Amino acid sequence: MGTKYVYLFAEGNAQMRNLLGGKGANLAEMTGLGLPVPRGFTVTTEACTRYYDDGKVISGEIQTEIFEYLAKLEEITGKKFGDLENPLLVSVRSGARASMPGMMDTILNLGLNDEVVVEFAKKTRNERFAYDSYRRFIQMFSDVVMELSKKDFEKIIDALKEKKGVKLDVDLNAEDMKTLVKEFKAYYKEKKGADFPRDPKEQLMEAVKAVFRSWDNPRANVYRRMNDIPYSWGTAVNVQEMVFGNTGDSSGTGVAFTRDPATGEKKLFGEFLMNAQGEDVVAGIRTPQTIDQLRDVMPEVYEQFTRICDTLENHYRDMQDMEFTIEDGKLFMLQTRNGKRTAKSALIIACALVDEGMISEEEALMMIDAKSLDAVLHPQFDAKALKAAQPIGTGLAASPGAACGRVVFTADAAAEWAARGEKVVLVRLETSPEDIEGMNVSQGILTVRGGMTSHAAVVARGMGTCCVSGCGEIEINEEEKEFRLGGKLIKEGDYISLDGSTGKIYAEAVPTVEASITGEFSRVMGWSDKYRKLKVRTNADTPKDAAKAIEFGAEGIGLCRTEHMFFEADRIKAMREMILSETLEQRKVALDKLLPIQRGDFEGIYEAMGGRPVTIRFLDPPLHEFLPSDPDEIKALADEMGVEVSKIENTILSLHEFNPMMGFRGCRLDVKYPEIAEMQTSAIIQAAININKAHPEWNIVPEIMIPLVGEIKEFKFVKNIVVETAGRIIKESGAQLSYHIGTMIEIPRAALTAGAIAEEAEFFSFGSNDLTQMTFGFSRDDAGKFLDYYYNKKIYENDPFAKLDTVGVGKLMKMAVTDGRAARPDIKLGICGEHGGDPSTIAFCHEIGLHYVSCSPFRVPIARLAAAQAAIRARQA
Amino acid sequence: MGTKYVYLFAEGNAQMRNLLGGKGANLAEMTGLGLPVPRGFTVTTEACTRYYDDGKVISGEIQTEIFEYLAKLEEITGKKFGDLENPLLVSVRSGARASMPGMMDTILNLGLNDEVVVEFAKKTRNERFAYDSYRRFIQMFSDVVMELSKKDFEKIIDALKEKKGVKLDVDLNAEDMKTLVKEFKAYYKEKKGADFPRDPKEQLMEAVKAVFRSWDNPRANVYRRMNDIPYSWGTAVNVQEMVFGNTGDSSGTGVAFTRDPATGEKKLFGEFLMNAQGEDVVAGIRTPQTIDQLRDVMPEVYEQFTRICDTLENHYRDMQDMEFTIEDGKLFMLQTRNGKRTAKSALIIACALVDEGMISEEEALMMIDAKSLDAVLHPQFDAKALKAAQPIGTGLAASPGAACGRVVFTADAAAEWAARGEKVVLVRLETSPEDIEGMNVSQGILTVRGGMTSHAAVVARGMGTCCVSGCGEIEINEEEKEFRLGGKLIKEGDYISLDGSTGKIYAEAVPTVEASITGEFSRVMGWSDKYRKLKVRTNADTPKDAAKAIEFGAEGIGLCRTEHMFFEADRIKAMREMILSETLEQRKVALDKLLPIQRGDFEGIYEAMGGRPVTIRFLDPPLHEFLPSDPDEIKALADEMGVEVSKIENTILSLHEFNPMMGFRGCRLDVKYPEIAEMQTSAIIQAAININKAHPEWNIVPEIMIPLVGEIKEFKFVKNIVVETAGRIIKESGAQLSYHIGTMIEIPRAALTAGAIAEEAEFFSFGSNDLTQMTFGFSRDDAGKFLDYYYNKKIYENDPFAKLDTVGVGKLMKMAVTDGRAARPDIKLGICGEHGGDPSTIAFCHEIGLHYVSCSPFRVPIARLAAAQAAIRARQA
Repeated sequence: MGTKYVYLFAEGNAQMRNLLGGKGANLAEMTGLGLPVPRGFTVTTEACTRYYDDGKVISGEIQTEIFEYLAKLEEITGKKFGDLENPLLVSVRSGARASMPGMMDTILNLGLNDEVVVEFAKKTRNERFAYDSYRRFIQMFSDVVMELSKKDFEKIIDALKEKKGVKLDVDLNAEDMKTLVKEFKAYYKEKKGADFPRDPKEQLMEAVKAVFRSWDNPRANVYRRMNDIPYSWGTAVNVQEMVFGNTGDSSGTGVAFTRDPATGEKKLFGEFLMNAQGEDVVAGIRTPQTIDQLRDVMPEVYEQFTRICDTLENHYRDMQDMEFTIEDGKLFMLQTRNGKRTAKSALIIACALVDEGMISEEEALMMIDAKSLDAVLHPQFDAKALKAAQPIGTGLAASPGAACGRVVFTADAAAEWAARGEKVVLVRLETSPEDIEGMNVSQGILTVRGGMTSHAAVVARGMGTCCVSGCGEIEINEEEKEFRLGGKLIKEGDYISLDGSTGKIYAEAVPTVEASITGEFSRVMGWSDKYRKLKVRTNADTPKDAAKAIEFGAEGIGLCRTEHMFFEADRIKAMREMILSETLEQRKVALDKLLPIQRGDFEGIYEAMGGRPVTIRFLDPPLHEFLPSDPDEIKALADEMGVEVSKIENTILSLHEFNPMMGFRGCRLDVKYPEIAEMQTSAIIQAAININKAHPEWNIVPEIMIPLVGEIKEFKFVKNIVVETAGRIIKESGAQLSYHIGTMIEIPRAALTAGAIAEEAEFFSFGSNDLTQMTFGFSRDDAGKFLDYYYNKKIYENDPFAKLDTVGVGKLMKMAVTDGRAARPDIKLGICGEHGGDPSTIAFCHEIGLHYVSCSPFRVPIARLAAAQAAIRARQA
Repeated sequence: MGTKYVYLFAEGNAQMRNLLGGKGANLAEMTGLGLPVPRGFTVTTEACTRYYDDGKVISGEIQTEIFEYLAKLEEITGKKFGDLENPLLVSVRSGARASMPGMMDTILNLGLNDEVVVEFAKKTRNERFAYDSYRRFIQMFSDVVMELSKKDFEKIIDALKEKKGVKLDVDLNAEDMKTLVKEFKAYYKEKKGADFPRDPKEQLMEAVKAVFRSWDNPRANVYRRMNDIPYSWGTAVNVQEMVFGNTGDSSGTGVAFTRDPATGEKKLFGEFLMNAQGEDVVAGIRTPQTIDQLRDVMPEVYEQFTRICDTLENHYRDMQDMEFTIEDGKLFMLQTRNGKRTAKSALIIACALVDEGMISEEEALMMIDAKSLDAVLHPQFDAKALKAAQPIGTGLAASPGAACGRVVFTADAAAEWAARGEKVVLVRLETSPEDIEGMNVSQGILTVRGGMTSHAAVVARGMGTCCVSGCGEIEINEEEKEFRLGGKLIKEGDYISLDGSTGKIYAEAVPTVEASITGEFSRVMGWSDKYRKLKVRTNADTPKDAAKAIEFGAEGIGLCRTEHMFFEADRIKAMREMILSETLEQRKVALDKLLPIQRGDFEGIYEAMGGRPVTIRFLDPPLHEFLPSDPDEIKALADEMGVEVSKIENTILSLHEFNPMMGFRGCRLDVKYPEIAEMQTSAIIQAAININKAHPEWNIVPEIMIPLVGEIKEFKFVKNIVVETAGRIIKESGAQLSYHIGTMIEIPRAALTAGAIAEEAEFFSFGSNDLTQMTFGFSRDDAGKFLDYYYNKKIYENDPFAKLDTVGVGKLMKMAVTDGRAARPDIKLGICGEHGGDPSTIAFCHEIGLHYVSCSPFRVPIARLAAAQAAIRARQA
């Protein structure tokens, strides 16, 4: 016998989630627990995978097995498909390994046809109910299986209601339902050129196929990508005996949570509707009652239900989200699953379950979605106000949180408006390093161009500021200070709101609520620190960011970018002087101006970090980024510096690059201008000596990081400058100071030659952004042009700039770790790319044995939790 | 005892070249053969390496050993350093493992000082000679060891001659020489602040150090990079008893070749000067006599010399280049080495030596520098005319050969002028694909921007047209049709000449001579084919190129780029229509226009290749390359296509990329627009079917190559389109046709996941240009900004775009070969990057077991020879 593709609920259990899907496994588990579950069977996820492997065909073998289990179900229930005496009606529902709410389709009342419905009406003694069920089935089947528009059927209903002069569905009687059935079937035949299928087995097979197909629909694909669910998993299909909540006043249907999913409070939370089917609850025509009210309506059912809730929560040891139906006074459980919850309530519930002795600390940690912690650290929209608001467009969810403010179009305007107390949202075609100050005072940032790792996105995440990037639909007119989106014209000063967690843009002021960090947050962080092996550092360039990161638990700085320091007004001038220098002497004069400024910056950061380790990276970006591009600004710069405009234009031209990503930057700058490395070394070493004098107990040991190394000799060249300069300064100062020199591993060749580089480098820090770009051969700024097509065609399921590609990029990292360690067993290994804050990447970093991850301050808590989860998972395996 | 750093000539032999350098090993060998060689010893190359490792210091250990061997030399010669009775004078000469003529420095007459010279004068009974020798020594020592300018000493001589009213050095008498010695020493003291060193041992050690130092001088570094000699080799130092060719009329000095190095003719070739030291021959004050005349001047010496020549040629089994000195009628051999020769004579000599039974075919092949074959395939400057010409500037030697013609500044002008019979040189800021036709009719191409793999360079090499690229010193004014270089203003119509093998630019018409392919060339190619294992294919996009390549022995096309076909006037329009299409339908209409054109192209190529395999690569470059950038052209295009200018501008804007190298190109185009892959598949398959009908004996099996693949699913996606389309067309045609589908390996991730890709791909072709760019993380168009600094600082010794980086890029290639073969043992492996024509890369490709290399047509002979050399070398090892 080959693979078994179908399981009765009675054959499965909760451990079989991969095979039976979440819903199927839990139905089986509840069946095993003796709870009242309508009987049924599950077609496995493997059948789904096979369906796709076979070219979207259900093989004869699987069909035979389904019919076999149908026969078993008929035997157990005593009902029969198409039987006129005791017809079996079933629901057909999808159920993937991971919960994908609303992503896939459901069909109810399957098994009805013109003959069966007559008997069904007799048997239920409710003709209206029977025909209503039938017309609902036709409608759902046509929509889900045959891809006819649900709306067209609604139109037929509306026409009938108009004709009869009634307003509500409930005002339609049995005869009307019969009319609808007739008209629905006629419409079906007109559109599909064939009669509505009357054979229940044919209906069933089509429905199963439709569920399989729905695994591949666009919204499922998007949901999977957002939630990191592999396409290869497939969905199971649950075929279950129908129970009806709409047979009369002793029937009903509802959903409930064992705890409040919004607040975490320990009390039953939910709602129900009497005499209704599930979809009526969703439709919202009648207002449902709260679950407490069930106590008054049907006390015994309520008692039974609360007992079941306790049973399930104790059994699953987690808050449960359940669906139930009451048919003629009898309670049936249709689903249970671990309930989705807000980040805040996740923390509260996890702590409560530990306190109740239900779960261990490790289990509590595994229960919390690390990514969701973003929400407790950033402002969010007021939930009610958000419901009422209508987005006018969507961009990329580049930096989480919610923002509301008045639109400005330049960084200067942002600074100006903010200075007079206005809350502003900065809208730009794209941001550049010169915009930093304006970005810093804005509530949120919206850009037309640029991806998840564009300048705006990276800087905003670092600042913890909400950002929506790359909304290409915006037609911006920066001169007129206005933009168009979704048919609206927004002018300077108008209010807009941004949701950095969804990318939605609102043309109105949606009020926000501040983040509130609870005591549970601290407890969970404490547990995380107890179980994790990876250290968590932060990427921070200013004392302010550093302080924020420490507040969030950072244990050091993994990446301090020195270039951002040069953009502020008081220093960009000296930087430009340096770039425009024509001789070594001129350049040294300019660098001498930068030295005290930079030393002061480092002193500030060392102060803020209070003795924690700080990895400082040498100047990295191409020099042209520091020069103005606007003709007026060029003129102003020329005047200020007393040189010809043409000279500056020539320098800009000579620095132009075809592919700046792969150009004259990183340590290449130091190879051409060793005096830059000299100045930066001086600033770092002098700062460390000064701070160590003030705080001998900190014993600061500078970590100097050389970027963009691809060859050991290149590293050694720059290292020599550092060693000579540092040696001289330390000697002159008479102080004692140790320091470390290491490198970024961000060029494939660095990973490939890591063994040689480790002979000289004391630490590696993986620059996974650039390493991803080079390994894939696409630039993050340009990949937007085609990546959507790659997602749609399932070539890539994830943005490799958000989630590390462990197959390709990861292979290089593993090589570098292995070869690096072989050459220098005590080499320090970390990651400082954007991936450093991504939980799945953190798990990979744990696996390959890095010492730390470094991420933007607001991601530090996520990283702490994710690191703990990785350690716990590894220990369990 | 540690390493032995010094060897007497009597201790060494020719096999010890790595340790003793070429000169030292051959002096030892000649000593061993019993030839008259002045006695001496060699300080090894390892001493040089140690000198650099120790921080440019000669360790005590080595100094002691040198002095030990000095003592031995004193014992053997019976002379003594600083001895007043029988003083030892020595020459100190560099001698690296590979010959680097004129690259390093020599010091003669070392051992003289104020006291020794007196006795030396007595002993030689020639006061003038003695003081002349002394002043020469001071001059050389000051120049080479102390870095005082030689010219300043010449000025002192000139002043004395003026004072005395004489013109020639020979007119100065002994007293004058004494005066010069005094003045030289005074000048030395003035400049160096110390007396000229009088201790011969101190002189010796300083001289040895100077030779070591000269290994690192700028011209040596450039020479090494040009000739692929590793910096790590170091140079040896030869210390040899002086013999004097300038003691009187029975003395002399000369150089000779056993065969004519320019023509290969078997007859003694050389010249000599009586009563002279080596430097006098170089100085060119007196005209030397030809070597034949020595027969009349000193018949016995001549006889002895010709016997020695025969001995040496027979012994070394190669043409020898020798230096000799006659001291008082006695012949001394100062050097022998395998003589440098022109490419043409290399072929002739190799064949002659085989015919004479002196060497085997394999040895003949190993004797020829594969790279030099360029010269026999391209026009060269007339040697005499070239000597008289003075270059006005130098660019990159981008495509070999010589060109002479009148300057034009646009491709259109080139076409126009050429049509009326003018020879033109096209001068451009940089070329673009639109310039192809103009480039094709030009004698040579000169660009201001762009590196060795810029558009101009790559296309010119493909065409076999001389090209000098990236001459950044040119100030070009394309509007005024003129440029400035080296102080000259060149206008349209002026003659210039380019040397594509040196990069030199001349502001005059230097006549060229056509390439002449000799019978020896064919013989050598025949032997190459006999011994090589690698197949040699060509990169060709047109029937013309294909025919040329076959003439040069190509066995197939390894890379047929389809994009170049779209730039010609009749097709660029349809291409642009395709790009500007807004719907699938519009795009298909445009593609339908391109289909027959492209099919015709492929038919032409299949015809030209006569059944040899052809690998056709799908469209690769970013689409914006096909759109005009000039506003007038945009306007014209808009008018022609009947669309708004703004529409075209918008399309251009939307196709703009930050890093086009890493953007929307290669198979990414096919993922977004599968219809492009469909059209190209149709064109290829239909062309093959048509040609197979006409020539059933050819049985063409198309090879379709997908570019820029980084992920197996991406490859599979495009492969599916090809398989479906090809299947349909083959079925419709009723013909039988096999075909292969493979991929470029040019993205690091493709190499890292080659095992998976090989499951689907039937062949791999390494696109080493892009693979190098991505692995190093620098773009070839931008690397020029910093690579020179990397060379100067010895971080890189070679241009990784010219010579494959076997350490990093090679590691990826090896992984891909190993993993690819494991997954598909019969996978076909080749390389089609620019490196495919580089001998050292070819050797690597042989080592890792590729099946073929593919290179531009003019490099095919080089590749055939290099492949044979690799095979022979591997068998020998």
